[in-house]
Amino acid sequence: MDFLEEPIPGVGTYDDFNTIDWVREKSRDRDRHREITNKSKESTWALIHGVSDAFSGWLLMLLIGLLSGSLAGLIDISAHWMTDLKEGICTGGFWFNHEHCCWNSEHVTFEHRDKCPEWNSWAQLIINTDQGAFAYIVNYFMYVLWALLFAFLAVSLVKAFAPYACGSGIPEIKTILSGFIIRGYLGKWTLVIKTITLVLAVSSGLSLGKEGPLVHVACCCGNILCHCFNKYRKNEAKRREVLSAAAAAGVSVAFGAPIGGVLFSLEEVSYYFPLKTLWRSFFAALVAAFTLRSINPFGNSRLVLFYVEFHTPWHLFELVPFIVLGIFGGLWGALFIRTNIAWCRKRKTTQLGKYPVVEVLIVTAITAILAFPNEYTRMSTSELISELFNDCGLLDSSKLCDYENHFNTSKGGELPDRPAGVGIYSAMWQLALTLILKIVITIFTFGMKIPSGLFIPSMAVGAIAGRLLGVGMEQLAYYHHDWGIFNSWCSQGADCITPGLYAMVGAAACLGGVTRMTVSLVVIMFELTGGLEYIVPLMAAAMTSKWVADALGREGIYDAHIRLNGYPFLEAKEEFAHKTLAMDVMKPRRNDPLLTVLTQDSMTVEDVETIISETTYSGFPVVVSRESQRLVGFVLRRDLIISIENARKKQDGVVSTSIIYFTEHSPPMPPYTPPTLKLRNILDLSPFTVTDLTPMEIVVDIFRKLGLRQCLVTHNGRLLGIITKKDVLKHIAQMANQDPDSILFN
Amino acid sequence: MDFLEEPIPGVGTYDDFNTIDWVREKSRDRDRHREITNKSKESTWALIHGVSDAFSGWLLMLLIGLLSGSLAGLIDISAHWMTDLKEGICTGGFWFNHEHCCWNSEHVTFEHRDKCPEWNSWAQLIINTDQGAFAYIVNYFMYVLWALLFAFLAVSLVKAFAPYACGSGIPEIKTILSGFIIRGYLGKWTLVIKTITLVLAVSSGLSLGKEGPLVHVACCCGNILCHCFNKYRKNEAKRREVLSAAAAAGVSVAFGAPIGGVLFSLEEVSYYFPLKTLWRSFFAALVAAFTLRSINPFGNSRLVLFYVEFHTPWHLFELVPFIVLGIFGGLWGALFIRTNIAWCRKRKTTQLGKYPVVEVLIVTAITAILAFPNEYTRMSTSELISELFNDCGLLDSSKLCDYENHFNTSKGGELPDRPAGVGIYSAMWQLALTLILKIVITIFTFGMKIPSGLFIPSMAVGAIAGRLLGVGMEQLAYYHHDWGIFNSWCSQGADCITPGLYAMVGAAACLGGVTRMTVSLVVIMFELTGGLEYIVPLMAAAMTSKWVADALGREGIYDAHIRLNGYPFLEAKEEFAHKTLAMDVMKPRRNDPLLTVLTQDSMTVEDVETIISETTYSGFPVVVSRESQRLVGFVLRRDLIISIENARKKQDGVVSTSIIYFTEHSPPMPPYTPPTLKLRNILDLSPFTVTDLTPMEIVVDIFRKLGLRQCLVTHNGRLLGIITKKDVLKHIAQMANQDPDSILFN
Repeated sequence: MDFLEEPIPGVGTYDDFNTIDWVREKSRDRDRHREITNKSKESTWALIHGVSDAFSGWLLMLLIGLLSGSLAGLIDISAHWMTDLKEGICTGGFWFNHEHCCWNSEHVTFEHRDKCPEWNSWAQLIINTDQGAFAYIVNYFMYVLWALLFAFLAVSLVKAFAPYACGSGIPEIKTILSGFIIRGYLGKWTLVIKTITLVLAVSSGLSLGKEGPLVHVACCCGNILCHCFNKYRKNEAKRREVLSAAAAAGVSVAFGAPIGGVLFSLEEVSYYFPLKTLWRSFFAALVAAFTLRSINPFGNSRLVLFYVEFHTPWHLFELVPFIVLGIFGGLWGALFIRTNIAWCRKRKTTQLGKYPVVEVLIVTAITAILAFPNEYTRMSTSELISELFNDCGLLDSSKLCDYENHFNTSKGGELPDRPAGVGIYSAMWQLALTLILKIVITIFTFGMKIPSGLFIPSMAVGAIAGRLLGVGMEQLAYYHHDWGIFNSWCSQGADCITPGLYAMVGAAACLGGVTRMTVSLVVIMFELTGGLEYIVPLMAAAMTSKWVADALGREGIYDAHIRLNGYPFLEAKEEFAHKTLAMDVMKPRRNDPLLTVLTQDSMTVEDVETIISETTYSGFPVVVSRESQRLVGFVLRRDLIISIENARKKQDGVVSTSIIYFTEHSPPMPPYTPPTLKLRNILDLSPFTVTDLTPMEIVVDIFRKLGLRQCLVTHNGRLLGIITKKDVLKHIAQMANQDPDSILFN
Repeated sequence: MDFLEEPIPGVGTYDDFNTIDWVREKSRDRDRHREITNKSKESTWALIHGVSDAFSGWLLMLLIGLLSGSLAGLIDISAHWMTDLKEGICTGGFWFNHEHCCWNSEHVTFEHRDKCPEWNSWAQLIINTDQGAFAYIVNYFMYVLWALLFAFLAVSLVKAFAPYACGSGIPEIKTILSGFIIRGYLGKWTLVIKTITLVLAVSSGLSLGKEGPLVHVACCCGNILCHCFNKYRKNEAKRREVLSAAAAAGVSVAFGAPIGGVLFSLEEVSYYFPLKTLWRSFFAALVAAFTLRSINPFGNSRLVLFYVEFHTPWHLFELVPFIVLGIFGGLWGALFIRTNIAWCRKRKTTQLGKYPVVEVLIVTAITAILAFPNEYTRMSTSELISELFNDCGLLDSSKLCDYENHFNTSKGGELPDRPAGVGIYSAMWQLALTLILKIVITIFTFGMKIPSGLFIPSMAVGAIAGRLLGVGMEQLAYYHHDWGIFNSWCSQGADCITPGLYAMVGAAACLGGVTRMTVSLVVIMFELTGGLEYIVPLMAAAMTSKWVADALGREGIYDAHIRLNGYPFLEAKEEFAHKTLAMDVMKPRRNDPLLTVLTQDSMTVEDVETIISETTYSGFPVVVSRESQRLVGFVLRRDLIISIENARKKQDGVVSTSIIYFTEHSPPMPPYTPPTLKLRNILDLSPFTVTDLTPMEIVVDIFRKLGLRQCLVTHNGRLLGIITKKDVLKHIAQMANQDPDSILFN
C-alpha cells in the first residue's frame, strides 16, 4: 500500500506567506494521536511516551509562563533603569534606578523620597551643580541626547537584524493565528532583538507602550519552545493553539491581569480557540503572572501596573460624565485610527518609508524636546497614568493633590471635596498640554520601525481627559453643592467626586475606542483596580466608546493595520451581509477559459508538468474525465512538484511519458510501456464542495469556521470552478467598496 | 418569481423534538437584516425601525437581567423565610424570617443574636415551653411535618402543571442551545411552577441547591421575553443567542458572579457563542447581579453568596493538602456521577419511576429525620457552607471556633494557631456525620421530580471535607511546629493554617469533579471570595480534581444526564478519534435498498405522496435523474407535505397526476395536461455534501461547527447516501462501546 510508505519529505508543508489548511492539519494531529494511543497498549515504554505526550502541552504552558514572565520582569527592570538614566545616574551603584538609589540612601526624608545625595543629575555630574539655567540646559541636552541614542540604537538594531521586530506585532499575530505563515516572525532573532529594542524604545521617552510588544515577545517564546516538542513543532494547527495561550500570557504579564489576558486572547487575537486551549491559556497566564510577581519589578510585590486603593462609591448622576468620557474615547479612537492609517499608508507609498532611521530620530527629537519642560510628559507614561489614577490622600505631595486643606475630615477618615489650590490649576494646564502632545505625537509614533504598543498611550490620553473632567466635576460639586443634582447626592463636606475614578474610566474608554475590546477591556480594568465596584462605570464608558467609534468606522486599529498590509485575514466578528452566490465569486469567471483540471488516469508526467509550468495555481482538482467533470479529489501544486521530482530521482524508469494514476489501482499495462506513477497518496480525497447556488454568506461561514484554503464549486454534480480564500477576501473587500487588490497573499 | 411570493405558513418551522438547521436559520436572519437595512434608506420611519431593531438585542438583555435578578431575589427571600418556618414563627410579624425577626427586636444581645422573645419555636407556640424532651419532640415533629408538606406541594405542582420544571434543567438547556427543540421547556408555565416549587424544594431541607434551577428560570425569562421581539421570536438561532446570555445571567444571580456566569455559559452551556453574544451576556449578567443587589435578599448589601474576609497568605507546602482535596473532589465527582446515573436509570426502567410523589416523600422524610438532630444538617446548606468558609475571629461564638484561647494575639491582630477546644472536637464528629449523610442522600435526591441543583450539595461535601482536613492540619501544625516542614514555614504563635481556605478549596474541587468546569469554576470561586490570592490553590485543586475524575469517566454530570435521556447532543469538547469514513456511517448501508430520492422534473404529486407515506425520512435529496444520480438539492419532508397540501387547496387544478418541478423553469406543457406544481422555492439548493472517503472526524467537525442536520454523501460526483445528525451520534456511541440505540431523537 502506498499509504504505509515513508512519506516524501516536504509533502504537507507550506510555503512562506501561505495559508494553512486547518482541516488537514487537525487530521494529521489526530492520526498522530491515534498512533500513539494504539502503540501505548503494546509496551510500557510506549505507554510512558503516550502519557508524556499528553502532558507535554501542560509542560509547554509552564515553560511559556516562566519564560515570558521572566522576560517581562527583565524588560520592566531595564526600562525603568534606562528611563532614569536619561535624567541622571546613581553614584551608589550605577545599576540602581532613581527609586532604588534613594531607597538605599540614609539621607532621605519622607517628604522628599526622590531626593538623595547618591542620585546625581547629569548637570551635577558635569558642572557640579543642579541649580540655575545652565544646569537646566545641561540636563535638557543630556535628556534629548540619551533619547536620541536609545531611539537610534533601537531602530538600527531592528533594521539590521530583525525587521519583523517593529510595531506592536498584534496585527501579524492575529493573522498568523488565523492560519497564515510568516517565517521568522516568531523566531529567536525576532525575540532577542524585540526584547532589547523594546527596552530602548520605551526608555527613549517616545509615546509608546510595552504592552502590545510583550504579547509578541510571549508569542515568540511560545513558538520557540514549540520546537522542543514534536507534537507542536510539526503541526501548524497545534502550534497555533499554543500561540493563543502565549498571547494570553503576554497580556497577563503586561497588565498583571491573568483572566483579562485569557479573555483578550479569546476576544481579540485568537481564531481557533477550543475549550482545552482556554484552560491551558489560563494556566500559562497564571504562571506568567506569578513569575513576574516573584521577580517583583515594581518593588511593591504587586502584580498590577496601576494599583488603585480607593473604594469610594460612585453616584448614579456620574454616569453622565462617564458617558461623556465614553464619547470622547470613541471619537479619539476613530480619529486615531483614521489619521494613523493615512500616515502609515503615506509611509508605505512615498519616499518617507525609505528612511526609517531618520524618521525615528526626528520623531524622538521632537518628542524629547517638547517633553522635557513639562513634568507630566517627562515622566514615563505608565508613571503618569499611575499618578492620574491615584486618589489624593492627606499626605500626598503631588501637585495634583494640592488642595486647600480645611482639615475637617469627614467621618471614616475620608477626605471631603476641597477647593483646588494653585498647584492643581497649574497641573491642569500642564495636563492639557500633555494631552495635546500625546494625541498628536502618538499618531506619528505608532507604526514606525521600532517596537511600539499603543495600550499605554491610549490609556494616557483617556486618563488625562478623565482627570481633567474629574477635577472639573469636583470643583463644580464643591462650589455649587446647592445645585439640585449635587444637593441630592453629595452633602457638603463629603467626599463626593473621585477624580482618580474619572481617569480610570477615561483610560478604559480611549483604549476601547482604539482597540474595540469589550469584555476583556472591562475585565482587565477590573483586575487592574481589584474591585467590582466600578464595573458599571467602566462598562458604560466602554460601551459608549465602542458604539461611537463603530459608527465612525467599523475596524479597530489592529484590523485596520491587517488590511493596510494586505494580510489574508477573514474577520470572524463581521457577518457578510450581501446576497451574492458562489457562482459570482468562483474562478473561472463566465468568459474565462475553463478550469484547469487533472484527470485521474489519462495524463502523463509531461502533461502535468506543462500544466504546472503554465499556471500559478496552488492546487488542481482531479476529475474522472474531462467530459464528465465528475470530481475525484484535489491535489496541491507543491505536493505534486515534490512527488514528481522525487519519483524521477528515486523510482526507476519514470519518464515524461509515464502515466500518472490518481486511482486506487492502475490497470495492467502492456509490456514496454514506461512504469506508471501512482500519486493517490498525495490526493485529498475529501475536498470541500459547495453548489454554485450557495449564498456567499454561507461560503464565508464555511471558510471561517472550518479554516479552508479553497473550496470547489459544483453544479448538479459537475465540477464548475474553485473559490480560494483570496477570492473570498477580495469579494468581501469589493462588496465593502474597498480595493480588492489590497489583498496580497493567499 | 416564486421567491417573492408570500411564504406558505409553516414552511421553515420545526416539529417538537427535532433539531434545527443552524445554517438555514442564520441565513434567514441575514435576509431579514438585509431587508431592514435596504428599507431603512427609504424613509425615516423605516430608519427608526432599523435602529430600534439593532438596539432590541440590548433592550432584551436589560429586561432579562431585570427579570431574572428580581425573580432570584424573590426566591432567595421566600426560601429563607420558609426554611425558618420549619423551626418556628415570628410573632412580631409572621412574614419575618428568624434573622429579621430578631433584628427588629429590642431584647436581643450581641452574644445571642438569634435569640429574641419575638421568635417562637413551634414547641413554644404549642406547648408553651422550649425546654425538655417533649418540646424537642414537638419541634422535631413539626420540622419533619413542614418538610414533608413542602416536598409534597413541590412534587404535586410539578407533576400536575409542568413536568419540565423538575431537575436542574442544565442538561436540557445545553441540548436546546445546541439546536434541539423541546416545546414548553422554557415556557411560562414552566417558569411559574419552577419558581414556586424551587422555593418549596429548597425549604423542605432536601439536599439540593437553587443555583442550577436558577439558570433554568433565567432561560425561561429569556425565552418568554423573546416573544416581544420579532427578531428573536421567529428565529431559532437568534433565540439561542439570547438563551446563552440568559444562562449567564442565571449563574450571575445564583452566585453573585457576573464574569463567572459569562464564562460558565461559554464553557459549559453554550454551543454557538459568537463574540457579540459574549458582550451581551456580560451586560445581562451585570444587570441581573445589580438588580439582585438592589433587592438585597441577604440583608448585607453584598452580591455574593459566601463572602470571605480572610486574606492570610497560604504557604507552598499547603499545596499538598490542596491536591489531596483535589483528588477527593475527583473521586467524589466520579462516584457521584456513576451512582446517580445508575439510580436514575433504575428509576427510568423500573416501577420506581411511576411513583414520583412517594419517592420524594420518602427521601424527604429520611432527610428530615436524620437532619434534625445534627445542627449542621439542620441548617440550610448554604448557611453551612458559609460557616465552613468562615475563618474564626476572636469573638466568633460558633462551635467551629471553640479554640482554647491563649490571648496572646500575634502581630497585626491576627489570631495565631491555637489548640482546639471541646466544641471543635464535637463539631468535627457532627461534620463527619453530615459529610456521610450528604454524600449518600444527594445521590438519591438529584434527578427526582422536583427542581434540584447540585452546585450547593457538591460544594457542601467539599467544604466539609476541606474543613476537616484544615482543622487537622492546623492542629498538626500547632502540636508539631518543630517538624521540619512546619518549622520552615510557620513560627510558633503565628497564624499558619486557615481552615476556611481548605473548605473553599475543597468546595471548588468537589464542584469541579461533578461538573468538570474549569476556568469558570476558578473565576466563580474567585468572584465569590473577592481576592486573587487564592487563585493558585483553587486552580491546583480544580485541575487535580478534573484529571482524577476524567480518568474515571470522561463525562460530567450534565453530559451523563444528556446521554441518559438520549438527547441528540454533539459534544464539542471531545474529539472524535476513530478512523472510520463517511461511507461506513451513511445510509443506505451496503446491502440496503437504494437511497430514496426525488427527481427534479419527472415525478407526479402522487409519486411524491407515495414516497412520503411509505418512508419516515425527514427529507429527500432531489437529483437530475435516477440514472445519473447527480444532486440538485434537498427538500424537507415537512415543507413538502405543507406545500403539496397548500397547493391542492389553493392552486386550481393541481391533482395527483400533476408533475412536480424542482427546476427553475418548467417546460411548456401540451394542452389538456394538468397544471404543474413548481416547488423550487422549498428546495435547499446548497445542500452540504462530503465524499464517501471523507474521514468521520472531519464529518463530525463539520456537523459540530456548522450545526448541520444532515449531510449528503457523494462518490465521484454521484449521490450515494445521506448522513444525519442521529447517524453521527449513533456512530460515536457505537465507537465508544455504548448502546447506539440510546440516541432517541433526530
